[in-house]
Amino acid sequence: MTNKMVERITSSFESQSLMKTLGAKIHKVEKGNVIIEAPFLPTTLQQLGYAHAGLTFSIGDSAAGYSALTLLPEDQEVMTAEIKINLLAPADGELFRAEGRVVKLGKRLVVVTAKIHAIKDGQSKLIAIMQGTMIPVRVNP
Amino acid sequence: MTNKMVERITSSFESQSLMKTLGAKIHKVEKGNVIIEAPFLPTTLQQLGYAHAGLTFSIGDSAAGYSALTLLPEDQEVMTAEIKINLLAPADGELFRAEGRVVKLGKRLVVVTAKIHAIKDGQSKLIAIMQGTMIPVRVNP
Amino acid sequence: MTNKMVERITSSFESQSLMKTLGAKIHKVEKGNVIIEAPFLPTTLQQLGYAHAGLTFSIGDSAAGYSALTLLPEDQEVMTAEIKINLLAPADGELFRAEGRVVKLGKRLVVVTAKIHAIKDGQSKLIAIMQGTMIPVRVNP
Amino acid sequence: MTNKMVERITSSFESQSLMKTLGAKIHKVEKGNVIIEAPFLPTTLQQLGYAHAGLTFSIGDSAAGYSALTLLPEDQEVMTAEIKINLLAPADGELFRAEGRVVKLGKRLVVVTAKIHAIKDGQSKLIAIMQGTMIPVRVNP
Repeated sequence: MTNKMVERITSSFESQSLMKTLGAKIHKVEKGNVIIEAPFLPTTLQQLGYAHAGLTFSIGDSAAGYSALTLLPEDQEVMTAEIKINLLAPADGELFRAEGRVVKLGKRLVVVTAKIHAIKDGQSKLIAIMQGTMIPVRVNP
Repeated sequence: MTNKMVERITSSFESQSLMKTLGAKIHKVEKGNVIIEAPFLPTTLQQLGYAHAGLTFSIGDSAAGYSALTLLPEDQEVMTAEIKINLLAPADGELFRAEGRVVKLGKRLVVVTAKIHAIKDGQSKLIAIMQGTMIPVRVNP
Repeated sequence: MTNKMVERITSSFESQSLMKTLGAKIHKVEKGNVIIEAPFLPTTLQQLGYAHAGLTFSIGDSAAGYSALTLLPEDQEVMTAEIKINLLAPADGELFRAEGRVVKLGKRLVVVTAKIHAIKDGQSKLIAIMQGTMIPVRVNP
Repeated sequence: MTNKMVERITSSFESQSLMKTLGAKIHKVEKGNVIIEAPFLPTTLQQLGYAHAGLTFSIGDSAAGYSALTLLPEDQEVMTAEIKINLLAPADGELFRAEGRVVKLGKRLVVVTAKIHAIKDGQSKLIAIMQGTMIPVRVNP
């Protein structure tokens, strides 16, 4: 993983205002594997006081998408074509960690997965898994 | 649809701080069919300046979940077990409208779909479809 | 819909030996909409005596794929990139009818849905819904 | 894993006539992990001569479902509520191996995944991944 790739992903991530609104940050960038974290915030909850599934989805989708981007040429961006989430437990914790991973880098599609953990009192618990498809898009310089 | 049901759903919705953060509002509540809208906000974008897939997902998931809730007894809440989104076009517009619908009300699971449209210059365009499973949960009074 | 398109789809369908093994037949071919039917057969059951989810999936996937193919140029075939099925009720009946439909014909991907009904004693019941992505592939002449 | 559990799963599997039609066999049964294999057969192909996605789906779904069943009490059966498949490569090989795994055993739902490999000339290649939800059902004795 070159510094250039890390910079490119960090720069793209920082231009996503939703990620800022959710308090999300990039935690790790490796080839085919990106981790994004978001804290428990009073502004991102559902009706029972847990973090909203929309938060879980958003950081999982981003981690999966950026893991795909690490394997693409520099003139390409990536978009989510489709993704599915299975929620395993309420998002109960101080921190939520989404780890995206590339399963198959194809010529036209990139198949990805993500696992999202909630960290509470130092304990990590798997709260959601995702499986989806990213599509490379050429960007104009 | 009784006023009581509309009140119950409105009250649940308003206690979701993420919906407030996204600027989302309930637009319609009918039996098995709920519409939620969110505006284009500078705080909910992705890197290319469109609304983030996390926004599209969040309002679609909420519309689908509340459409299930309209058909459940009063002592029950609803949680997303799993849901899948196919993104058809960038979320380009001033307003995003998610319509949830119940496909099958089972004893143990409620199968739902959602369609999300972007409204731009008065034109409505389908930008995402969702298909998922809600699970009723008994709440303590 | 030209006769040529109907012939092309019928010919492709008939070269799928699994469809023959399942007793499946094309019932309707229109632009963006294909119906495939399969009978109850003693050779395609699950352990409780209903038709197997594998049968339901197979005819739903085929109907969805061929509905995409009706909208593609003649030098292209179509492959399933991904598809999701929600099973609503046991496949109980004499006949199973899968209707595929194109939701969005994109340049690179075709988003599709399918509904599968079981027909029993003349009554039709929705037993499954599907949502997925087809990808056009160029075929050599 | 007791012999009783292995017998119960084998017996259930053998009563699925579709599995016989597809030539499928149980290869391994462990707690939360089941492997099912099916050979390349001239009767289960798609139009290009590869094994049909319906075969890949069917053995993946079965492996996932039986992996859930290994963790359930004896008076329960399991049904697929929903499942999604991403196809990564054509099903090209002499043998197809589906490995199901339980991700989360909940009180009301069991979340599962499956990986399907094609074995060709002794080489194993990942051709599909699946993610889904099984639901326990009580059976009458």
